[in-house]
Amino acid sequence: MATLKEACGLFGIYSEAAADTALFCHLGLYSLQHRGQEGCGIAWNDKGSLTVQKDLGLVAEVFPEPVQVTSTTRMAIAHTRYGTSGERSRENVQPLLIRHQMGSMALAHNGNLTNDVQLRSSLERQGSLFHTTSDTEVIAYIITKHRLTSESVEEAVEKAMDELKGSYSLLVMTAGKLIAVRDRWGFKPLCIGKLEDGYVFASESCALDAVGAQFLRDVEPGEICIVDAKTGQLESKKRHVGETKGSLCVFELIYFARPDSVIDTISVHQARLRSGAFLALEHPAQADVVIGVPDSGIDAAIGYAWQSGIPYSIGFIKNKYIGRTFIQPKQGERESGVRIKLNPIASTVAGKRVVLIDDSIVRGTTSKRIVRLLREAGAKEVHLRSSAPPFLHPCYYGTDIDSRKDLFAHKYSHQEMQKILDVDSLGFLLPEQVLKLSDHPSIGFCSACFTGSYPCEPPQGVVDASSESQ
Amino acid sequence: MATLKEACGLFGIYSEAAADTALFCHLGLYSLQHRGQEGCGIAWNDKGSLTVQKDLGLVAEVFPEPVQVTSTTRMAIAHTRYGTSGERSRENVQPLLIRHQMGSMALAHNGNLTNDVQLRSSLERQGSLFHTTSDTEVIAYIITKHRLTSESVEEAVEKAMDELKGSYSLLVMTAGKLIAVRDRWGFKPLCIGKLEDGYVFASESCALDAVGAQFLRDVEPGEICIVDAKTGQLESKKRHVGETKGSLCVFELIYFARPDSVIDTISVHQARLRSGAFLALEHPAQADVVIGVPDSGIDAAIGYAWQSGIPYSIGFIKNKYIGRTFIQPKQGERESGVRIKLNPIASTVAGKRVVLIDDSIVRGTTSKRIVRLLREAGAKEVHLRSSAPPFLHPCYYGTDIDSRKDLFAHKYSHQEMQKILDVDSLGFLLPEQVLKLSDHPSIGFCSACFTGSYPCEPPQGVVDASSESQ
Amino acid sequence: MATLKEACGLFGIYSEAAADTALFCHLGLYSLQHRGQEGCGIAWNDKGSLTVQKDLGLVAEVFPEPVQVTSTTRMAIAHTRYGTSGERSRENVQPLLIRHQMGSMALAHNGNLTNDVQLRSSLERQGSLFHTTSDTEVIAYIITKHRLTSESVEEAVEKAMDELKGSYSLLVMTAGKLIAVRDRWGFKPLCIGKLEDGYVFASESCALDAVGAQFLRDVEPGEICIVDAKTGQLESKKRHVGETKGSLCVFELIYFARPDSVIDTISVHQARLRSGAFLALEHPAQADVVIGVPDSGIDAAIGYAWQSGIPYSIGFIKNKYIGRTFIQPKQGERESGVRIKLNPIASTVAGKRVVLIDDSIVRGTTSKRIVRLLREAGAKEVHLRSSAPPFLHPCYYGTDIDSRKDLFAHKYSHQEMQKILDVDSLGFLLPEQVLKLSDHPSIGFCSACFTGSYPCEPPQGVVDASSESQ
Amino acid sequence: MATLKEACGLFGIYSEAAADTALFCHLGLYSLQHRGQEGCGIAWNDKGSLTVQKDLGLVAEVFPEPVQVTSTTRMAIAHTRYGTSGERSRENVQPLLIRHQMGSMALAHNGNLTNDVQLRSSLERQGSLFHTTSDTEVIAYIITKHRLTSESVEEAVEKAMDELKGSYSLLVMTAGKLIAVRDRWGFKPLCIGKLEDGYVFASESCALDAVGAQFLRDVEPGEICIVDAKTGQLESKKRHVGETKGSLCVFELIYFARPDSVIDTISVHQARLRSGAFLALEHPAQADVVIGVPDSGIDAAIGYAWQSGIPYSIGFIKNKYIGRTFIQPKQGERESGVRIKLNPIASTVAGKRVVLIDDSIVRGTTSKRIVRLLREAGAKEVHLRSSAPPFLHPCYYGTDIDSRKDLFAHKYSHQEMQKILDVDSLGFLLPEQVLKLSDHPSIGFCSACFTGSYPCEPPQGVVDASSESQ
Repeated sequence: MATLKEACGLFGIYSEAAADTALFCHLGLYSLQHRGQEGCGIAWNDKGSLTVQKDLGLVAEVFPEPVQVTSTTRMAIAHTRYGTSGERSRENVQPLLIRHQMGSMALAHNGNLTNDVQLRSSLERQGSLFHTTSDTEVIAYIITKHRLTSESVEEAVEKAMDELKGSYSLLVMTAGKLIAVRDRWGFKPLCIGKLEDGYVFASESCALDAVGAQFLRDVEPGEICIVDAKTGQLESKKRHVGETKGSLCVFELIYFARPDSVIDTISVHQARLRSGAFLALEHPAQADVVIGVPDSGIDAAIGYAWQSGIPYSIGFIKNKYIGRTFIQPKQGERESGVRIKLNPIASTVAGKRVVLIDDSIVRGTTSKRIVRLLREAGAKEVHLRSSAPPFLHPCYYGTDIDSRKDLFAHKYSHQEMQKILDVDSLGFLLPEQVLKLSDHPSIGFCSACFTGSYPCEPPQGVVDASSESQ
Repeated sequence: MATLKEACGLFGIYSEAAADTALFCHLGLYSLQHRGQEGCGIAWNDKGSLTVQKDLGLVAEVFPEPVQVTSTTRMAIAHTRYGTSGERSRENVQPLLIRHQMGSMALAHNGNLTNDVQLRSSLERQGSLFHTTSDTEVIAYIITKHRLTSESVEEAVEKAMDELKGSYSLLVMTAGKLIAVRDRWGFKPLCIGKLEDGYVFASESCALDAVGAQFLRDVEPGEICIVDAKTGQLESKKRHVGETKGSLCVFELIYFARPDSVIDTISVHQARLRSGAFLALEHPAQADVVIGVPDSGIDAAIGYAWQSGIPYSIGFIKNKYIGRTFIQPKQGERESGVRIKLNPIASTVAGKRVVLIDDSIVRGTTSKRIVRLLREAGAKEVHLRSSAPPFLHPCYYGTDIDSRKDLFAHKYSHQEMQKILDVDSLGFLLPEQVLKLSDHPSIGFCSACFTGSYPCEPPQGVVDASSESQ
Repeated sequence: MATLKEACGLFGIYSEAAADTALFCHLGLYSLQHRGQEGCGIAWNDKGSLTVQKDLGLVAEVFPEPVQVTSTTRMAIAHTRYGTSGERSRENVQPLLIRHQMGSMALAHNGNLTNDVQLRSSLERQGSLFHTTSDTEVIAYIITKHRLTSESVEEAVEKAMDELKGSYSLLVMTAGKLIAVRDRWGFKPLCIGKLEDGYVFASESCALDAVGAQFLRDVEPGEICIVDAKTGQLESKKRHVGETKGSLCVFELIYFARPDSVIDTISVHQARLRSGAFLALEHPAQADVVIGVPDSGIDAAIGYAWQSGIPYSIGFIKNKYIGRTFIQPKQGERESGVRIKLNPIASTVAGKRVVLIDDSIVRGTTSKRIVRLLREAGAKEVHLRSSAPPFLHPCYYGTDIDSRKDLFAHKYSHQEMQKILDVDSLGFLLPEQVLKLSDHPSIGFCSACFTGSYPCEPPQGVVDASSESQ
Repeated sequence: MATLKEACGLFGIYSEAAADTALFCHLGLYSLQHRGQEGCGIAWNDKGSLTVQKDLGLVAEVFPEPVQVTSTTRMAIAHTRYGTSGERSRENVQPLLIRHQMGSMALAHNGNLTNDVQLRSSLERQGSLFHTTSDTEVIAYIITKHRLTSESVEEAVEKAMDELKGSYSLLVMTAGKLIAVRDRWGFKPLCIGKLEDGYVFASESCALDAVGAQFLRDVEPGEICIVDAKTGQLESKKRHVGETKGSLCVFELIYFARPDSVIDTISVHQARLRSGAFLALEHPAQADVVIGVPDSGIDAAIGYAWQSGIPYSIGFIKNKYIGRTFIQPKQGERESGVRIKLNPIASTVAGKRVVLIDDSIVRGTTSKRIVRLLREAGAKEVHLRSSAPPFLHPCYYGTDIDSRKDLFAHKYSHQEMQKILDVDSLGFLLPEQVLKLSDHPSIGFCSACFTGSYPCEPPQGVVDASSESQ
């Protein structure tokens, strides 16, 4: 039950017949809502003219109905945004629509640049203005700069990729083209689906399912995929492909993605089952029941149960009606705890030895509350297992693990952690097991937050500070 | 995955210190949102003066924040409403607040009178006017009529119960009292919780958990519980207690209630596990995996897995962001099916023999779609099990099973059903097993919809028509 | 610039072709918005089935567009409500829709019963319940009671009129009829317009103009006008006509109505010009310019200018964008005064002797602020003239002049008033001149608030108290 | 009753004590709502940190209450926007907030650049991106470009003014300064008010009155006024002052501004009275009554009445509740005409010879409808007088008189116009009289739309086309 913030969901469509463009964006956004609940938007392209509609809020709030587009709207891109609470501002909601004499351009971005500050500063010194605080605007600038000297927008994108460092899966829509890009490390997912009359791009394959598209393949790390409205064909530029061995964020598998998605050929559900099995092998427990913290601990709990032979059951009910704006009670906090969001099923745990699987332990506070709920519900023993290894290093590629000093596993020894959490035993997935969550040995992962080994140079300044503190 | 409509959630509070009245109603409503999503409301009592705030919409929409009440508000009642779509009108949202020289009164009601038409007609002939089409207004009239000749409001309620037929769990709040009533058959649940400084009443015990109240006991069928603001004590009138052996709606256990609730001493989760175990015994299958239709088929699937030894896994992901107002795609329906609301996990079912547990099969259309999704995802065999027996008779006590002619099990033979649903085998819970879902043999159930044996006389006219059609 | 609250606007339509029913209600409500800004609603009749839509708020807020009705909706009634701030509740917004076996009924009411309390109490003793605190519900009950023993709804209305005391202009819509009623005193206006294919009823003729209806005549005091959907003809019941000599509220002419309306054959604009002329004759002044307080003092100021020969000009600009919900500044009140709502034009008044015409002086506070604004803008002399006589008695028929003790003219002598208001001279219309505002000598007026002579018995209890205090 | 669109209202405040910053912006916006009803916004400065809140809608919709600012917010700028309907987009609502390493900057702009296209194109060639289609973003770029090479922001503004052509009154707020600028021609108004503890800038003096500020003086054409938060003093840069003789848009006096405002020492109300007097002298009529089209024809009608000796009266009532979003009836248009927005007072005009004063005649359609309303109400003769001269040339400085081909006076002869409008006589203000609307002979006006004499070079391309068509 991590409360990490990151993700963002991308959805793009090119449909020759233009019958369902708006509807499919609507369905696509709903399918990717779990990747971002701060805001969302759709930019569409009607015969070369771009329009955007977007706002803070859930899909159901911002788009109670599919957007009204004309019957000649063949292209669109859509975005769900996950922002840190401090920056909850309407300006940063995407897609970003910018105007320029080389042609207007809409961008939707999932990721985080590591050289954002340097690029922005350099652009400003040349007279550029920024409306937003997001690095997406920096990307828009870099691409536009290269458009002035390129033969095509995809060439400009290719040149821009030489300058952009960090993570970015990107959809770019111009008057005539729909472009999907994945940074050379492949930090964030992006896949391609085939419609009868066109193509869709999406952060996760569950969005392809939602619109009835056929899964084609993932966009490769470093690849630029182009659908040109003139031909309706899918083309590819691969100069940056193969520059790295691939560094998919392991948290996509453990926490962010939906279990029914397949990312870089890995079934998310299978990966989580596997993590549970690894935990059962590495950290067995004498127990009566295995339960998971909903939603992302459930699959691993089943995997643990299968491997260990201990029966799986339902330990908690999560209240799915608690909204984004739910105000945590003040006076009542002591009494009601988190039981309004999460309530234990006493009959499952009372008098039992319980194996509890959570997706990760970041600051420790949530895990502590959850264990206490189990104790109050009568659990005799609690054996906590985390389907992620201990967090020891900050993430610079978009996941909200900012500073080492708040990281539970960085601050405390194993024994201290067990005591603070009030558990009978505690086990983490091993960093090397992370690499085995896929049965395709060729897939590379980023597990920098566990190992400190960063696939792409961290931001300047930040790096030094981090090194010093070691 | 029944789409039955009924339920309605009740929450009432008396708190001496009056510190958290509004907050606790807020939490209580959130905990009972699953029982009614059409509208909700709160009526509160500040030193004898009653105010109501209510509207169509979810709790998060109607009450983005707890209602603003004064610091002397010690009593309140709250309601979440489930109405049939045709009657979605603001007038019918509860609590109902009525004014009269005997004192104002607020009512919240879960259930359905069977002699509503006769009572209403008789009242109108005496000059009464109705603002709403709901039977709650009839109850208000009957109680008020008796207040004119009673010594207390609870005496008026007791007399009213002589006239009211059908199902009703009821909260009544006057200037000085909070009253909780359950019809003599006990069709609908209602329980009592203890606060440090008062009492709460709620349709389900999960609402007690949400506010940190201690579960005390259920309101007995036929019982009137009174908290008098003068004393703060809980009292009870039991003239109607024991008039029947009790007829809890079995659907509360199978479908309506939250698994973490305990109703009439039965853990809902345990009852569902048990139904799954019964199914495994009665309708075994040679299969590779057991899955449940979320949300209410999950517990029974685990029960089936335990009993049968076939591994339990996750078969579907349900999109929890699809709102009440979600508009089902028109053109896209063929292609996208229900995959926007429910998407199968291919890796769980592809090439497998699957046992699929659903909570019930009413009209058959939903089950048919779900089976097709599994087939498309590669399931080799599908063995469908329903944790409710076949529906053969209409319900007159509030559950939306109106007419026999639409009931799947009434229209078709077992073999026809299997063919229509395209399943390899089909099994239902036996009606006699329903009575064994509780391990307390003293609990009586209403299972009229399976057996045709009605604990309380059905409405006039309707009954005859039903008999004729047999 | 009285801040009296009363009025309420009524609009009803019967249209054979049913082409514009919803649109005409929309336009009618906009035309009568000045009579009530607290809430509004429309009840419509589609082949005998009644529906109501209503809420707190301005027409533009409650009905951003005309209501969606079917093409067979031939009847509707609409209402704009002016309530006292204390009772600003959604329940009291009209039309009131009530259900009964004699047939549903929608009511829209302008006025105030004087025997409301007695009728309500008697009804409650017979077991009736009330949902609202408005006397409209009492009227609904009385009519319904008589429907049980009458041959037609109009006969029931006729019998109800024997019991109802006080002021009421009323629209009643049943499954088959549209009925317009005016109390026997004719306190509140109500007129009839002819459409090509039907009829409209409205509080003021400006609403007839808005929908292009031909003014036919006023509903007579005591008359019941019926349009029967079977025949489409306008019929009339006149048993109560002629029971009084007529008592139109003089404030309709002075303050409430729009200048472009004609009420009981009197042009409101002409009546106000006439009041200004009377003031010029009775209270002349040596002055340089005549100005009026917008909006309702403007016409009388022109009348004063014409009669006196002193030039008329514009003295104040009223900010028409300040909404209903405008929050008066706290700290800024001293400095900004009412200059945000009303700003003097310095070039009109600086160094001038100014005749200032206001519609009335109730509590004196507004007049005092306005005079101060003129002084600050440089006016040399201010001669205040009120186009209403001094208020000395409370109104029991709907106008918000509640208690004698707050009435400026009751508390202070003429000299004291001049001093408090800081004016060089002060003049009121004479009570006897009120009767001459019409050039039709047959029209009777209620001027009880000036004379204490009440056309219809004041409420019990209240009367005595008022007598004692004399 | 012109339906010209232009204006935009500016309001800026520096208040040492910071007690009322938000409130005064609120009042200021309300006072300037008549200048722009499409959208509005406020940008505020809390200890150097800038925040903006803005949206499409009226002040009462966007800011139901004053914005929540901290108690240390000493500076703010606010804007009401009037846009052409085609561009009604949220992006273009102001103030514009841009971010840059030289410091963030908020801008509010009233006017229209004539070299917008050239500047934008040149900036884009250097790699700049635009988020909006408004020329305000161009201004932001030009200022920012110069900030990189200037010692202060005011120096950058001064340099930017060398490049900017066309009309602009401008408020600029940086971390430390509040700056007010008026283009060297002084097309749009801008004035300075003194608070006890600071300064306000506003498009019109009525906004100073609303917040209780003392009118200090107008910003001079070409002047840059600076309030530095360090000193709280008002300073001025005047390099561009005196570069032209001044060209205040004459339409500010005739139509846009509020009558209670004083612009460049001219009372708007007086200027309008004067235009009416000129009309009476130049175009006398034998008539019984003078009426004006509300709101902006009223003052001139009084001026005409004074000069001619013909009595002034009220001819029309304007419905002030018809909102921005009011949907003009479709079927009903023929019958109800504009009588829902504007209804004649029959008693004023029936059987009379009427002088009708309108502020201007642009396309002729509105005037035609209004004359027809008078005829239908019984007017015997209608003598139409326009307080603006005939429009013959497009405006390039912001007023929405785009193309010559739609201009009524350009298309038709005087006799044709009379016939089309169905008036007995027709008279316009003479272009030379426009210059005499002020009694200060030193004030220069722009009357290019009447004379074709453009104070500042029209946009390239457009000019040629215009010349050709002559």
